[in-house]
Amino acid sequence: MLHKDRLFPAEGVARDVARKLYQVAEKLPIVSPHGHTDPSWFAENEAFPNPTALFIQPDHYVFRMLYSQGISLESLGISGQPADPREVWRIFARNYYLFRGTPTRAWIDYEFENLFGFTERLSEKNADAFYETIDKKLKEPGFRPRALYEQFNLEVLATTDAATDTLEHHAKIRASGWKGRIVPTFRPDGVVDAEFAGFKDNIETLGKLTGEDVSSWKGYLDALRKRRAFFKEMGATATDHGHLTARTADLGEAKAAELYGKIYKGTFEAADVELFQAQMLTELAGMSVEDGLVMQLHPGSVRNHNTKVYEKFGRDKGADIPSPTEYVRALRPLLSKYGNETGFTLILFTLDETSYSRELAPLAGHYPALKLGPAWWFHDSPEGMMRYREQVTETAGFYNTCGFNDDTRALLSIPARHDVARRVDCAFLGRLVAEHRLDEDEAFELIEDLTVNLARKAYKL
Amino acid sequence: MLHKDRLFPAEGVARDVARKLYQVAEKLPIVSPHGHTDPSWFAENEAFPNPTALFIQPDHYVFRMLYSQGISLESLGISGQPADPREVWRIFARNYYLFRGTPTRAWIDYEFENLFGFTERLSEKNADAFYETIDKKLKEPGFRPRALYEQFNLEVLATTDAATDTLEHHAKIRASGWKGRIVPTFRPDGVVDAEFAGFKDNIETLGKLTGEDVSSWKGYLDALRKRRAFFKEMGATATDHGHLTARTADLGEAKAAELYGKIYKGTFEAADVELFQAQMLTELAGMSVEDGLVMQLHPGSVRNHNTKVYEKFGRDKGADIPSPTEYVRALRPLLSKYGNETGFTLILFTLDETSYSRELAPLAGHYPALKLGPAWWFHDSPEGMMRYREQVTETAGFYNTCGFNDDTRALLSIPARHDVARRVDCAFLGRLVAEHRLDEDEAFELIEDLTVNLARKAYKL
Amino acid sequence: MLHKDRLFPAEGVARDVARKLYQVAEKLPIVSPHGHTDPSWFAENEAFPNPTALFIQPDHYVFRMLYSQGISLESLGISGQPADPREVWRIFARNYYLFRGTPTRAWIDYEFENLFGFTERLSEKNADAFYETIDKKLKEPGFRPRALYEQFNLEVLATTDAATDTLEHHAKIRASGWKGRIVPTFRPDGVVDAEFAGFKDNIETLGKLTGEDVSSWKGYLDALRKRRAFFKEMGATATDHGHLTARTADLGEAKAAELYGKIYKGTFEAADVELFQAQMLTELAGMSVEDGLVMQLHPGSVRNHNTKVYEKFGRDKGADIPSPTEYVRALRPLLSKYGNETGFTLILFTLDETSYSRELAPLAGHYPALKLGPAWWFHDSPEGMMRYREQVTETAGFYNTCGFNDDTRALLSIPARHDVARRVDCAFLGRLVAEHRLDEDEAFELIEDLTVNLARKAYKL
Repeated sequence: MLHKDRLFPAEGVARDVARKLYQVAEKLPIVSPHGHTDPSWFAENEAFPNPTALFIQPDHYVFRMLYSQGISLESLGISGQPADPREVWRIFARNYYLFRGTPTRAWIDYEFENLFGFTERLSEKNADAFYETIDKKLKEPGFRPRALYEQFNLEVLATTDAATDTLEHHAKIRASGWKGRIVPTFRPDGVVDAEFAGFKDNIETLGKLTGEDVSSWKGYLDALRKRRAFFKEMGATATDHGHLTARTADLGEAKAAELYGKIYKGTFEAADVELFQAQMLTELAGMSVEDGLVMQLHPGSVRNHNTKVYEKFGRDKGADIPSPTEYVRALRPLLSKYGNETGFTLILFTLDETSYSRELAPLAGHYPALKLGPAWWFHDSPEGMMRYREQVTETAGFYNTCGFNDDTRALLSIPARHDVARRVDCAFLGRLVAEHRLDEDEAFELIEDLTVNLARKAYKL
Repeated sequence: MLHKDRLFPAEGVARDVARKLYQVAEKLPIVSPHGHTDPSWFAENEAFPNPTALFIQPDHYVFRMLYSQGISLESLGISGQPADPREVWRIFARNYYLFRGTPTRAWIDYEFENLFGFTERLSEKNADAFYETIDKKLKEPGFRPRALYEQFNLEVLATTDAATDTLEHHAKIRASGWKGRIVPTFRPDGVVDAEFAGFKDNIETLGKLTGEDVSSWKGYLDALRKRRAFFKEMGATATDHGHLTARTADLGEAKAAELYGKIYKGTFEAADVELFQAQMLTELAGMSVEDGLVMQLHPGSVRNHNTKVYEKFGRDKGADIPSPTEYVRALRPLLSKYGNETGFTLILFTLDETSYSRELAPLAGHYPALKLGPAWWFHDSPEGMMRYREQVTETAGFYNTCGFNDDTRALLSIPARHDVARRVDCAFLGRLVAEHRLDEDEAFELIEDLTVNLARKAYKL
Repeated sequence: MLHKDRLFPAEGVARDVARKLYQVAEKLPIVSPHGHTDPSWFAENEAFPNPTALFIQPDHYVFRMLYSQGISLESLGISGQPADPREVWRIFARNYYLFRGTPTRAWIDYEFENLFGFTERLSEKNADAFYETIDKKLKEPGFRPRALYEQFNLEVLATTDAATDTLEHHAKIRASGWKGRIVPTFRPDGVVDAEFAGFKDNIETLGKLTGEDVSSWKGYLDALRKRRAFFKEMGATATDHGHLTARTADLGEAKAAELYGKIYKGTFEAADVELFQAQMLTELAGMSVEDGLVMQLHPGSVRNHNTKVYEKFGRDKGADIPSPTEYVRALRPLLSKYGNETGFTLILFTLDETSYSRELAPLAGHYPALKLGPAWWFHDSPEGMMRYREQVTETAGFYNTCGFNDDTRALLSIPARHDVARRVDCAFLGRLVAEHRLDEDEAFELIEDLTVNLARKAYKL
C-alpha cells in the first residue's frame, strides 16, 4: 500500500537525492514540540477503547469530511449520544474514497500498514476485518500509550495545557520513573480571551492557584508569572496563543490597568475584548523575555463558524474556518518593544498562505526574535508544505524556520505526519540539488536540521 | 499543430498515466452545466455569418488582449460601427503571437485543427486562406448549431437567462422534436441588483409575467417563486447569481420588507443596494431549499472598470476586473440558516485564488450544502486549473467539487475548453499516481467522476 | 561551483530546450532600465574600497539575514561606527550557510566564480583567502566601474535620482566622452510625500532650481514639469514612484489646489498626506502623457517597520516589509483619465503576489497604457520569478510585461541577477515547449523579447 518513494519527485536526479536524504531522515528521532495529545494517556497508560474511538471520533479532519458529504454527526457518534462503534467504522470504510488526495488518507494508510500490518486499502468489503484486527491489537501491551511513544522513537512530546491546569498528569508521569519526555505547554487563552467559555471562573481559579489578587492588574500579571514558573518547573519550554487576529498593542501601564478593570468586572464592550488580547500578547512577550519560555502565536481561525452545529454539538466540530490575516501592522507594537531581543523567540503560524512570501518571510528574515512555525492545520499536507518551502525559503532562509509540528490529538498519526513532512523536505531539497541550486553536502546537513536540530534549538528542547 | 501529449507532464510515469487516463476521458460526453451560449442559435439553427463574427467579436478574451496592445475597438468592429470582417481577421492574425502562453491560444488552435483541419499556425501570411476556409465551412450544414452540438458529443448544455426572460427559444427547441438537451438557468441579477440597467422595468416585467403585485415584499418573492417554477418546467436545474461580493444577510421579515420598500420606490441609499442583494441571496437560498434548484454564486468582479470604454461602448467590453473577495464572514448568515440542509446545494466560484486554500476548501470541506465550482474565468487555464486542484483537493477532497464549467458564449470553444480541463485533470492525477499518492485504479474512477459524474450529480442533470 | 544547467528543469525535453534558449540569451546585452547604482561611480571611476564595503555593507539582502540571526549591525559596521572589514567578512563567511536556498546565495556565488575565479564555496576556512583575492582584484583597472560596465555587456543602465538632484554626476559622465550609457530616472517621492524626511526643504529647493513660485499649486506643478524636462534632456526616459499604496485620486483643479495649500503650509492632517500622494500620481501621469516619460509605480512597502532599528540606525536597514496591496479600486481614478492613452505607459510593480493573477494581469490585459514590471524585491528570486510567469502569462500574455529589472545598488550583482532571470525564463519557456503549449520557434523569439526587446520598447530605450 505504501510505496517506498511516495511523495518524492517521480523521476530522475531529484528523486535519487530525495531517496538518499530520506535514508538519513527516517532514522532520526521524532521531536514533537507542539501538539494536543492527552497527558493522561501517558500517566494512566491504559489501552485505547476501540478503533472508532481512536481513528474517527477525536479526529476533526476525518469527521468534517464525512459531515460535508451529508453524513450526520449523530450517525458517527459525535453528537454526545452513543453510536455502535462497528457501525460507525463501516460508514467510515464505505466513504474512505472521499479522502483521496488528502493528507488524512496518507496518514491513515501509514498507520494501517505500519502499525497494523494491513497491505490493502480500507473499503466497504474489508471494513469488519480491519475493525477486528485493530481492536485486537489495541488490547496488546505494545499498543499502550507509553509503548507507542517508545516505538515511535519520540525524543520529546509537548502537550498543550490551560494556564489553570494542575498538570497532575504530567506530575504523575514524572513521578512514575518512566523515561519518556512529555512536557506541558502554557496556553493562557482561557484567561486572556474574555469571550472564552468560563472566562470569569478561569480568572478566579488563576487567583486561587497562585494566591494572587486577580482583581488587580498587577495581581493578574503576577498570577500569570507564577503559573508560567510552575509550568517551567514541570518541563515546559514554550507558551502557545490562539487568537482571532495577530493584533498586538502596547497601551502603557495605566491604560492597560484600566482596560483589565473592565475585563475583570465584565463591563467591557466588544472592542475591548480584542484590545485586551492584543495588549496581553505584548505583556506575555515581556514575560517570555524574562523567563525564557518560547512564545507561539496561532492566529486567524474563525471558531465555530457553523452556528447550528455549535448550538447543537458544541465546539471543535470541524467548523473552524481560516480567514485573511494581517501580520505587518498587527505585530508592530510587540515587535517594536521586543523584536530585537536576541534571547526572545516568537514563533508565528498562519492559516493564510498569502502571508508566507508577503509578510512572514520578510518579517522573519529581519527580526532576531522571530521564527516561522511550519505549515499549519489545513496546510499541513504535501502540497501545503511544499508551498511553504517554496514561498518562505528564498526570503527567510531555512534557519529562520523551526522544523515540523505535528499539532495533533491523534496519537497514532504522529509518526505518519512526521514521515510526510520529512518526505516533502527530502523532495524539496532533492529538487534544489537536481537544479544545481544547493550542493549535496548542504542538503545532507539541512535534512538533519529540518528534521530535528531546528526544532530542538527553537523550542530549547 | 496539436500534439497528442499536450498539457501532460513532459516525461515519465506521470505522463504515461495521464495518457491512459485521457484515453478514457476523451471518449466521455460533454456535460456543460453553466455557460452563455445563445438559445436562439439552437432554436433557429441558422449558419453563423463569418469567421470574425464567430471568433473575435463575441469573445472578450480575444478582443481585450488586442485592445491592451493599443488596437482600437473601432478597428475590430466592436464599437457598434461596422468594420470589414476580413480586415478585422487580418488584424487578429497579425497579432496572434500576443496570445502565446494563454488559454485562448490553446482553445483557438484546437478549433482550427479539429473543426477546420488547419495544421499550421495562424499568421499574417495565411490569414486570408484561413478566413476563406472557415467562411466556406460555416455555410455547410455540419456547421449549423445543432449539428455542432451533436458533433461535440454534448449530453446537456445550460444557458443563462434573465429571470424575466420568456424562454421562447427554449420553448421552440423543445417543440422542435430535436433531441439535443438545452436547459435554461435562472439568473435574477436584473431584478435583485437595484443598480442593474433597467432594474425598475425588470421588476415591473416580473410583476406582469407572474400576475403578482411586486410593490409588496411578499408579491415580489412570490413572483420570483413563480418564475423559478416556470424555469424548472422548462428544464432548468439551477440558478446563477453574479454579485460584487459574497455578502449575505438574514434581516428577518419586517426589516427585509422595509428594505424592499425602499428598493422598489427608489428611495434607497448606496448601502441599501448591497444589503438588499445580501438579503436576497439568503431568500433565494431558501427558495432553493424549497424547489431544489441548485444555486450558483459568482462574486468578485468589478464590472465596467474602464469608465471611458463603458461610456463609449457599453458593458462587456473586457473591462471587468477581479478584486479581493471574502467568503467566511460574508456567507455566515446564509450558511447558518441553510448550510446544513443536505438537500440544498450552493456552488461557489471565485476570482480570488487566495480563497481556495484559505476559505473555500475549508468551508466546502465542512458544510453539507456547499460545493466548489471549477476554476473560473481568468483562472480557467492550464496553470489556473492546476493551482485549483493543488490548493483545493487536500482540504475539500475531490468530492466537494463539481466538475468543469466551460462558462462560454463561444460555441466553438466548448470542446476545446473541456479538452483542456480534462487534460489538466489527467496531468494532476498522473502526478499523484507517479508520486504514489493515489492508486491507479482510483485515478481511473476519478477521471470519470471529474469529467462527467460530479457535474451530473451536483447540477442534478 | 556554478553548474551550467543551474535553474533549468532537472531532466528531459524541458531542460534541453532551456539549454538551447539560454545559448541565445546569455549572449544578449544587459538592458537595465531600473536600478539604484550610484552615478558618481561612473563619473569618478575610482576603485571600490574593499570586499566588505562592496558585498556586505550596502546590500540589505545580506545584512538583514545576518541581523535576523542575532548578529548585531554594529558588528557588521552598519551602525555608523567603523568595524574592521576583515572581521566583518569573517562573520559573513562563517554564516554563509544561512543563505542556502536564497537568491543572494545564487548571486554571490555567480560573482565569486565569474568575477573572481573562485571555484569553492565561501566558508569560515577560506574566508581570509577570499578577502585577499577580492581586495587585490578591486585595485586592478579591470574592476573600476566603467570597466565593469563594459565587461558586463551593459547596453544601458538607469539610476534613480531625486527630483531635486542636480544630476551633476550624469553631466560629468556625458562630458567625459565615455561611451557607456547611464541614464537618470526622475523620482519625485521627496517632493510628493509630505512625511518624507526634509520634505519642506525639498520643496523649496525645487522652487529655487526652477525659478517657480512653489507656494502655488500651479507653480509647484510647473516646477515639476521643468525638472522632468531637465531629466529628459539628461537622458531620462522614465519616472519612478514609491508609495505606501497604489491609491490615485482625481480631485479636480480647485480641490487639488486647496489640498496643496495645506501640504505646503504644513497645516495638513494625516489623511491629507495620502490623498495628496494619490492626487499627485494622477497629475504626474498627466505629465507623462505630455512629455512621454514612462511612469513606474512601486507600492506596498511599509518602510522602517522596526522602530528601534530606525531610531538607532536610520532608514534602509532591511526593515521595510511588504503589506497587502489593492490595485483595482486604487488605480481607477488614474486609469479612467489616462488608461486608454496609447502613448502613455504605466508600469506596475507589486510586493503582494496575490495581485498577479487577481488584479494586475487582468488590468494589464485590458488597459492599453498598462504594463507589468517584473517580479520585484523579495520576489526577485527563482521561485518568485517562476510564480510571476505562471500567474501572469495566461491572462496578460508575455507582451504586456516588460522584461527584467535588476533594481540593485550592488553593481557586481547586475550580471548575476540578469543571469538568474534569463535562466528562469528559459526554464519556463522550456516547460511550455516540452508540454506542447508553445512551439519551439516561438520560444526562441520570446527569449529575445523577454531578455532585451520588451525592456527596450517599454522604457523607450
